[in-house]
Amino acid sequence: MHSFEELVKKFSSHFNVRHFPAEPATLFDPCEYFLGLGGKRIRPVMCLMGNELFNEISPDAYDLASAIELFHNFTLIHDDIMDKAPLRRGMQTVHTKYDESTALLSGDVMLIQAYEYVNKIRTNYIHRILHLFNKTARQVCEGQQLDMDFEKKGRVKLDEYITMIGLKTSVLMAASLQMGAILGGAGEGNANHLYQFGLNLGIAFQVQDDYLDAFGDPQKFGKQVGGDIVANKKTFLMIHALEVAADEQKKELENLAHLKDEGKVDKVLSIYKSCGVDEWARSLKEKYITEALQHLEDAAVLSSRKKPLQELASFLVQRDY
Amino acid sequence: MHSFEELVKKFSSHFNVRHFPAEPATLFDPCEYFLGLGGKRIRPVMCLMGNELFNEISPDAYDLASAIELFHNFTLIHDDIMDKAPLRRGMQTVHTKYDESTALLSGDVMLIQAYEYVNKIRTNYIHRILHLFNKTARQVCEGQQLDMDFEKKGRVKLDEYITMIGLKTSVLMAASLQMGAILGGAGEGNANHLYQFGLNLGIAFQVQDDYLDAFGDPQKFGKQVGGDIVANKKTFLMIHALEVAADEQKKELENLAHLKDEGKVDKVLSIYKSCGVDEWARSLKEKYITEALQHLEDAAVLSSRKKPLQELASFLVQRDY
Repeated sequence: MHSFEELVKKFSSHFNVRHFPAEPATLFDPCEYFLGLGGKRIRPVMCLMGNELFNEISPDAYDLASAIELFHNFTLIHDDIMDKAPLRRGMQTVHTKYDESTALLSGDVMLIQAYEYVNKIRTNYIHRILHLFNKTARQVCEGQQLDMDFEKKGRVKLDEYITMIGLKTSVLMAASLQMGAILGGAGEGNANHLYQFGLNLGIAFQVQDDYLDAFGDPQKFGKQVGGDIVANKKTFLMIHALEVAADEQKKELENLAHLKDEGKVDKVLSIYKSCGVDEWARSLKEKYITEALQHLEDAAVLSSRKKPLQELASFLVQRDY
Repeated sequence: MHSFEELVKKFSSHFNVRHFPAEPATLFDPCEYFLGLGGKRIRPVMCLMGNELFNEISPDAYDLASAIELFHNFTLIHDDIMDKAPLRRGMQTVHTKYDESTALLSGDVMLIQAYEYVNKIRTNYIHRILHLFNKTARQVCEGQQLDMDFEKKGRVKLDEYITMIGLKTSVLMAASLQMGAILGGAGEGNANHLYQFGLNLGIAFQVQDDYLDAFGDPQKFGKQVGGDIVANKKTFLMIHALEVAADEQKKELENLAHLKDEGKVDKVLSIYKSCGVDEWARSLKEKYITEALQHLEDAAVLSSRKKPLQELASFLVQRDY
């Protein structure tokens, strides 16, 4: 049994190798550059945790974890193009450092390489895992599309936003746990409980992400504070504020969305605070965490084995970065 | 045993169905739109032909053929973004009809769906086929990258261009045949001969493609005549012309490359003709076809079974569209 930190180390010792050929360097150097930016490696570690819940970590769980991390990085490279994001983890995004065509193609080849790791899974599990991997990958694309659609929409309802976040963020966490568990020999019922644990945790994770963007410490968070506000992104905070704020404040939020006002971030934050959005976000996060932990509780596994996942849940939703 | 035409029909009756969910329509309608534009379906038919060379067509050969055709269409959608191409098969490209983000994401989800068809392959073949599929997919990306790199380069040598075309175009044809053959029970030796047949045929196919762009009938070809010339693309014709033309003509070709001259296409075509580029292209094509047919000859299969592949070779390199 390993803690989150230990599993990050174990995963990194497998993953921090070159994943691509040397040539053509114009294609593969950008891939290696982006992977070198690091990341929290949450999803691959969830795969290992799901696996270790039932048994010693199986060798192919590391391959699946690598596939998951490559898939996640593929989505980041392509999302950055679509979002025209200049920075990721405080460093230049691929399309900024190179160009859009290179970023597009590097992302493509990273997705393909993910499938090469999937191919290392034991034969008796390959069909089931490949199907779950494909389904999840498709859902993540659906989530990204909904996110873009919402940008163009006036109002977005909270339940629509949760559906989008579920697809864009949570299903990959949920499936990482579930697929790891399947490789560990989990039955259908336990695999489903773990999926639901991951799904609810993923929503809580996103609530925290949206919260940190507005109320986090920029030094720790590594991103511009209020970046979502500047970009007029729909977030848990903005959607709720537009639902509960007084009419005058709603109008101000809607007006601010069309401005490139220097004081915009401060003005929006002040409205958020005055209508208790920060407090609401904390309790929403709690609701999803409770739901997640209940599913973990319901999984028929030795209690002592569940500890790393409980720690992970605490880490993800209490993190300040 | 079926002819090319018959296999196109058989494949189409499997493939001309909806491949994606209905929602979100903003993501999946563009996928279905693009598939609806049709195409020659050469690669999936090559997969079926490779399969039928050894046995009755196995049901999963149709799934593999669908995976191949989806993969091919994914590359077209993304290539069109990178090439800023407004038209494909005489219709709007995805990024023109919708937008670039939609085209990017539609391509992604089409690649993922290709892998879902790969997953339908019989278990005893899945690892071998998935590996070949991944390797080929990666090589196609390498070819596209080299193609873009060449755009920025002054001179490109013929052998560099052939390497690029081999990756961008031929390996998928070669692997389609080879993977189909493997599913038909082919041994290593025969599978390799078929791969080499496809590889050489693919080069000949591209020579013909470059030839048609310059000398084809625009009504039949469905593309702007001299499109490659307008776009200053390196082609078999241009590379050879720059090697054999008189110094004065070389200078003119290089000058024309920097112009948006209305008479540019005619001027380049006139130089092509005066230094016999059209004749050279036809003999180059013959060379590759002969090499391809030799590999087919060397495959240890009943001669009568080879007829559809011989017909395919003739069709591909004699086609005027």
